[in-house]
Amino acid sequence: MFDAMFCTPAVLSATDADAWLREMLRVEAALARAGATVGLIPADDAASIGSACVPELFDAAELGARAVASATPVVPLLLDLRARVPQASARFVHLGATSQDVMDTALVLIARRCADLILGDLWAVGDLLADLADRHRGTAQIGRTLLRQAVPTSFGVVCAGWLAGVDEAVAGLVRARGRLPLQYGGPVGVHDTLGAAGPRLAEALGELLGLPVPTLPWHTRRGPLAELGAALGAVGGALATIATAIVLLSQDEVAEVAEGAAGVSSAMPHKRNPARSALVLACTHQIPGLVATVLASQPVELQRSAGRWQAEWPTLTTLLRLTAAAAGHARAALGSLRVDAERMITTAGRPVLPEAADLLVDRVLEEHRAARP
Amino acid sequence: MFDAMFCTPAVLSATDADAWLREMLRVEAALARAGATVGLIPADDAASIGSACVPELFDAAELGARAVASATPVVPLLLDLRARVPQASARFVHLGATSQDVMDTALVLIARRCADLILGDLWAVGDLLADLADRHRGTAQIGRTLLRQAVPTSFGVVCAGWLAGVDEAVAGLVRARGRLPLQYGGPVGVHDTLGAAGPRLAEALGELLGLPVPTLPWHTRRGPLAELGAALGAVGGALATIATAIVLLSQDEVAEVAEGAAGVSSAMPHKRNPARSALVLACTHQIPGLVATVLASQPVELQRSAGRWQAEWPTLTTLLRLTAAAAGHARAALGSLRVDAERMITTAGRPVLPEAADLLVDRVLEEHRAARP
Amino acid sequence: MFDAMFCTPAVLSATDADAWLREMLRVEAALARAGATVGLIPADDAASIGSACVPELFDAAELGARAVASATPVVPLLLDLRARVPQASARFVHLGATSQDVMDTALVLIARRCADLILGDLWAVGDLLADLADRHRGTAQIGRTLLRQAVPTSFGVVCAGWLAGVDEAVAGLVRARGRLPLQYGGPVGVHDTLGAAGPRLAEALGELLGLPVPTLPWHTRRGPLAELGAALGAVGGALATIATAIVLLSQDEVAEVAEGAAGVSSAMPHKRNPARSALVLACTHQIPGLVATVLASQPVELQRSAGRWQAEWPTLTTLLRLTAAAAGHARAALGSLRVDAERMITTAGRPVLPEAADLLVDRVLEEHRAARP
Amino acid sequence: MFDAMFCTPAVLSATDADAWLREMLRVEAALARAGATVGLIPADDAASIGSACVPELFDAAELGARAVASATPVVPLLLDLRARVPQASARFVHLGATSQDVMDTALVLIARRCADLILGDLWAVGDLLADLADRHRGTAQIGRTLLRQAVPTSFGVVCAGWLAGVDEAVAGLVRARGRLPLQYGGPVGVHDTLGAAGPRLAEALGELLGLPVPTLPWHTRRGPLAELGAALGAVGGALATIATAIVLLSQDEVAEVAEGAAGVSSAMPHKRNPARSALVLACTHQIPGLVATVLASQPVELQRSAGRWQAEWPTLTTLLRLTAAAAGHARAALGSLRVDAERMITTAGRPVLPEAADLLVDRVLEEHRAARP
Repeated sequence: MFDAMFCTPAVLSATDADAWLREMLRVEAALARAGATVGLIPADDAASIGSACVPELFDAAELGARAVASATPVVPLLLDLRARVPQASARFVHLGATSQDVMDTALVLIARRCADLILGDLWAVGDLLADLADRHRGTAQIGRTLLRQAVPTSFGVVCAGWLAGVDEAVAGLVRARGRLPLQYGGPVGVHDTLGAAGPRLAEALGELLGLPVPTLPWHTRRGPLAELGAALGAVGGALATIATAIVLLSQDEVAEVAEGAAGVSSAMPHKRNPARSALVLACTHQIPGLVATVLASQPVELQRSAGRWQAEWPTLTTLLRLTAAAAGHARAALGSLRVDAERMITTAGRPVLPEAADLLVDRVLEEHRAARP
Repeated sequence: MFDAMFCTPAVLSATDADAWLREMLRVEAALARAGATVGLIPADDAASIGSACVPELFDAAELGARAVASATPVVPLLLDLRARVPQASARFVHLGATSQDVMDTALVLIARRCADLILGDLWAVGDLLADLADRHRGTAQIGRTLLRQAVPTSFGVVCAGWLAGVDEAVAGLVRARGRLPLQYGGPVGVHDTLGAAGPRLAEALGELLGLPVPTLPWHTRRGPLAELGAALGAVGGALATIATAIVLLSQDEVAEVAEGAAGVSSAMPHKRNPARSALVLACTHQIPGLVATVLASQPVELQRSAGRWQAEWPTLTTLLRLTAAAAGHARAALGSLRVDAERMITTAGRPVLPEAADLLVDRVLEEHRAARP
Repeated sequence: MFDAMFCTPAVLSATDADAWLREMLRVEAALARAGATVGLIPADDAASIGSACVPELFDAAELGARAVASATPVVPLLLDLRARVPQASARFVHLGATSQDVMDTALVLIARRCADLILGDLWAVGDLLADLADRHRGTAQIGRTLLRQAVPTSFGVVCAGWLAGVDEAVAGLVRARGRLPLQYGGPVGVHDTLGAAGPRLAEALGELLGLPVPTLPWHTRRGPLAELGAALGAVGGALATIATAIVLLSQDEVAEVAEGAAGVSSAMPHKRNPARSALVLACTHQIPGLVATVLASQPVELQRSAGRWQAEWPTLTTLLRLTAAAAGHARAALGSLRVDAERMITTAGRPVLPEAADLLVDRVLEEHRAARP
Repeated sequence: MFDAMFCTPAVLSATDADAWLREMLRVEAALARAGATVGLIPADDAASIGSACVPELFDAAELGARAVASATPVVPLLLDLRARVPQASARFVHLGATSQDVMDTALVLIARRCADLILGDLWAVGDLLADLADRHRGTAQIGRTLLRQAVPTSFGVVCAGWLAGVDEAVAGLVRARGRLPLQYGGPVGVHDTLGAAGPRLAEALGELLGLPVPTLPWHTRRGPLAELGAALGAVGGALATIATAIVLLSQDEVAEVAEGAAGVSSAMPHKRNPARSALVLACTHQIPGLVATVLASQPVELQRSAGRWQAEWPTLTTLLRLTAAAAGHARAALGSLRVDAERMITTAGRPVLPEAADLLVDRVLEEHRAARP
C-alpha cells in the first residue's frame, strides 16, 4: 500500500528480490570470468558458469525461503548454480569466495545503482533551487527564528541556502558511492585457498565490476557502509530542511508558498495540503534510526558477524528506498512550487541589503554550476 | 530475497498491501453498520456500503500509487468506494470520519492480529524454555561474567532466567495489544459534524470492532503506539539475550549447546553455524532504531502531523515483522537445541547449591504456568 | 554551561557522583542490616558496617578514577569500605553480593527518586492543563491538520488532549517506577555462596530498601530498565506535543498563545521567543536515541555483559535528567501561558458543537481528578 | 562517578562549562579584532572588548542558570560583557552577530580541539596495531565466522584489518574536523546590518580563528555537524570491532589474548576481566543513538530551530567525550595486550598461505606509514 510513498519505482526495481538475485549472479559470473583472466579457471569452464548465471533460471522467492537454514541466500544459490553447470565446471563456481564476498559485492552494486538514481533526482532538485534562488534574490522575505519574525532576508538567499545544503549532501553521496568497494577474500578474508593469486583475482574482478579493490577485504571493517548510511542521512537532512520550510510557509496564516499540486483531504474537500512535503518528512523522519542501526552493525564478531552483518541488508535497502522517495517527493514539491512574492515582500516590510544577498546567491549558484555533471 | 529471514509468512500476509486494504474496508463497513445502530445511517444505506467494502473490488497497488497525491490512501479509497455504492448511500460513507480515523484504526487491527501471531510463537518459546529449565535444573554450568568463567550456576537456572524474560515481555505485549484503541473523531478530533452523536457512534464502532474507546480521540496522542513499540522492543531484548547465549555457547571452544538443524556454510561444508540464532540477532538488532523512530513520531504538529504520523505506518509494520521473525527463529533454535550436559558439568567443576537453584526454577515455572493462556 | 537547560537542580543532585556514592553505600549498609535480620551476620558486625557506610568518608571522584581498572566503581569502594570497618567485620561486607547487585540496586534507588521528582512536575503540568481545559472549553479554535486550517475545535479540547497525553504518560512512569526491583543474586545470580539463605536475605533486603524482590535476579533480564526508558520516552512525547503546539501557536502570524516570560534575543531586543517550549523540545529531541541505546543494551552476554550493562549508567542518568528538565520547562511555559481567546474565536469563525466538546473535556478532567494523588 | 569511564581528563576539560565560556569569549574577542581589521570597529574599542573577554571575569555556572530564560547562554553573556567594556565600546560588542554565530563557532572550536585529542590516541592505537600486525604476520590463528572455527588466518592479518579500520576512521575524522566552518551571518544569516561588509568581516574572522569560511552561513545547514557525528560513529565502530575481538579472544576457553592490566572482580578476586575492552564497548555502544539525534537535528525550522539546534550542544559534547574515552581505553587495552602466539598456532592447526598474508599486512602498514603525521 505504501510502496509509492516510501520508494520510487526505479529504486524499488533496483532493490527487490529479483535485483538481489541478478546482482548475486553478476558477481558469480564475473568471478568466473576474472578467474579465467588470471589463469585460475579454464576459459570453457568460465563460459559455462557465465551461461548459467541467468536470473530467469532461478527463483528468487524460493531461494529466499531456503536461505533461512543457513542465514544466507548464497548457500542455496550455489547449490542451484552448481547443478546448472556441467559437472566438470562446478568446482570452479564461487572460486576462492565466501558467502560474504557475494552478498557484500551484490549490496555494493545495488547501492551504487540506487545512488545514481537518487543523484539524478537530487541534481534536478538542485536545478530547481538554483532557478528559485536566482529569480527571487531580490524578493525580500521576513526571516523567522524560533518561528518568530526577526529581520528580512530574501527568498533567493533562503533557496540558495537549501541549494548549498543539497549540493553538499550530493557531494557526500557521490564520494560514499565511489568508495564502495569490491568484497573478495574467501572464508576469513585472507584468500585461504588461493594465496597470492587471491589479490590478483581480486584486481581482475574489481576491474570487471567497475569497483575499487580495497587494501584488504573489509568483511570486518564496515566503514564503507557506515559512510554510505551517513551520506544518506545527510541527504535526508538537506531535503527535510526544505520540506519543513515548505510546510511552515504553506500555513494559511503565512501563505508565502504553496505546492502547486497540493493534496486533498478526505473530510474537507476545500483544503489543500502540502502533501509532497509531508511525504518528504515521512521518509526522512525514518532515516536517523536506520543510520544508527547501520553504525551499530560495525562491530563484527571476529571474522564474520552472527546477526549484525545480516541486519545490514534490509536496513540499507530501506535507507536507499526512503532517500530515493524523499528526493522524488522533494523534486515534485519544488517543481510545482507557487511563490507569493508580493506577500513575502509585504510581510518583510523592507528589503534586505542587496549586496550581501547577491554575493551569497552568486557564490552558491557558481558552486552549483561548477559541480553539476 | 529476505522476506523469510525478516518476517514470518503469517505476519507477512497480515501486513501487506492487501491486509491494509482489507482492514481499511473493515473500518468503513463497521462505521456504516455502527451508524445504523445509533440511528445516524438508514439500515439500507449501511447495508449498501457494507456490500461494497469487499477487497476484491479494489486494487491495493493502484490505490497506493494514487495515495501519493494526498499523502494518504484513504482519499483514493473513498473515491472508489463512493463510486461503488448507490448514489443515495454515498453521502453516508465515512460518516463523521477523517483519514486518520481509518488509518489509525486499520493499523490497530493489523497490529493486534500480528501481536496474536507473535504471542503464539512466544508462548511456544516459553514452553520450550520451561522444559529446558525443568530438565536441566541440576545441570551445573559455569557462569561467565564479562565472558570470563566465574562460579557455577545451572543451565536450568539460566533457562529459567530466559523464560522469566520472555514471560515479562509477553505480559508487556499482551498489555500493549489490549490497550490499542479505536480511533474515531473526525477531522480535528472533536466530532465536528456529529456533536454529541459522535461519542455514541464511537462506542458502537468500538464494540463492533472489538476495540476499546479512548477518553477522547488520540490523533495527537501517540502513547498507545509508543507503548506497542516499546513492548516489541522488550520482546526483542528477551529473544536477543537467548540468541546471544546460544551463539556464545555454540563456539567450538565452549560447545555446550548446538542448534540441531545448524546451517551450512558456502565455503566450508563441514562447518555448522548457529544460523537461527544469528537470524534472531539480525532481526532484533534492527528494533531499537525503529522504536526510536516511533517515539520520535509522538510530537504531532497541532491537529495532524505533516510527516511523523505517516512515518508510523512503515515503521510499525517493519517492527511487527521483525519481532515476528525473531520469535519464529527463536522457537526453531530452541526447538532443535542440543545440550551437552556432560560437558557443562565437567567445565563447571562443581554443582551449584541445589536449594537456591530449585527455588528459583520452581518460582519461574509456576509463574509461567499461571500466565499461560 | 548547559546544566540548567538540560536538568533540574533537584535531579542533578539526585544523579551526580555524590548521589551514586550515597546510594551504593545505602545498599551495602542495608545488606549488612538485612544479613543481621536473617541471622547471617552478627548484629555487631552489621552495626560496624553500617557505621562505615557514610558518604563523607569516601571520595566519589577518586573512586570514579579508580573504577576504570575494573570497569566498576564497586571494586575500589569495597576496598575502601573494608579498610574502614574492624578487621573481624570486613568479611561480612558485601555478603553474597556482586558488583552488579550494588550498581543495579543503586541505579534503581536513583531512578525512583528522580521519577518522584519528575512526577511532581508532571502533576503540576497536568493541573495547569486541567485549568486551561476547563476555562477554554468554549473557546473555539481553528483545528489545523498538516498545518492547514481545517474546521474548528476548542482550545479546551486541545488542552484536554494534552492533559490526557500527560496523564497516560504519568501512569506509565508510575508503573515503571514501581516495578523497578531489587537486584541481589551474587556473582552469577544464583546465590552461589548462600544457597537457600540467599532468597531469604533478598526478601529482607528488599523490605529494608522498599523495593520489590523479583522472581529471580535480573542481571541478564533488563526488562525493568527497558520499561523505565520507554516510560520516559512516552513522557517526552507528551511534553513535546505541547511544546510543539506552543511554538506553532506563538508564531506572529498565528499569535493565539504566548509564553508570559518569553525569552529575548541577542540580536533583536524587541523579539520574544518561546524559549521554554524550545527547551522542552531541545530536551525531548534527545530522548528517542537514548531509549534506543537502553533497548539495545538488553541482550546481555551470558551472566554479565562486557559493555552494554555499563552503558546503562550514563544513558539512564541522561534520560532521567532530560525528562526532568522537559517537565520543568513545560511547567514554566504553561504556568505563564497567555491565551488570546478572542483571536482564537475570530480565526475559528464558528464555534465547535458544544455537546461533544464538553463531553470530551469533562471525561478527561474526571480521569485527571481520579488519578491525582 | 563515571567521568573517567566515559571521558578522558583532557577532553573533559575541553568540553566543560569553563571551556564553553572560554570559546564563546574567544569568538567575541576575535570578532572585535576582525572588525577592527576591516575598519568596522575603531581599534581602541576592539582592544577594550578584547581586554574584557577574559573567562575569569565571568561565572560559567551562573551564566548557565540565566541562559534558561532565552534558551541560549549568549544573551546573559552579552549583558555581562557589555557591562564590562567602556560604554562607548559597548555598541561594537557582538557586531553584526547573532547568538547562533557565537554558539556554533564555539562548538566548532571545541570540537576541533577534542578531535585533535582523540586523533592523538587514535594514532597511538594505530601504531600499536601496526606493531602487532608486523610481529604476528606469521602467527597462524584460526578464523572464526559466526563464532565457529573456520580456516586459518594470521593474527597479523587480523591486526592489519583492525589497523585499516582505524586508519580509515581517522581519515574521516581528520576530514570532518577540517571542514568544520566558521559561523557568522547575523540574525537570519544574511548580514542584515552590515551588507557586503559582512562577508569581508567573516573572512577576517575566519582567518583569526583558523576556520574555513563557508559559501554562506550554515545556520540552517547542519551538514558539517552531521559529518562530524558520522565520523565519530565510524571511529566508534572501528574501536568496537577491536574491543569485541579482545573480549571474545580473552574467554577462558579461547585464551589467545589477555589484557595485561586486567580488571579484578568484586566477588571473585582470582578472576581477570577484559575491563578496558568492556569500557570501549560501554562507550561505543552509546554512539549510534547519539549520532541519530545529531542527524535528526538537521531539519531546522526556517531561520533558526526551536529545539533541535539547542539539542546539538549536549549531544555532540557527549559524542566527543565517549569517542575520546573509547580511544583512550582502546589504547590502554592494546598497549598491555598479551598475545599467546603458541596457543593461536596450535588451535589454527596449519599456517595460512604466507604470500597473501604478507601482501595484505604490508599494504596496510605502508598506508599507515604514509598517512601518519
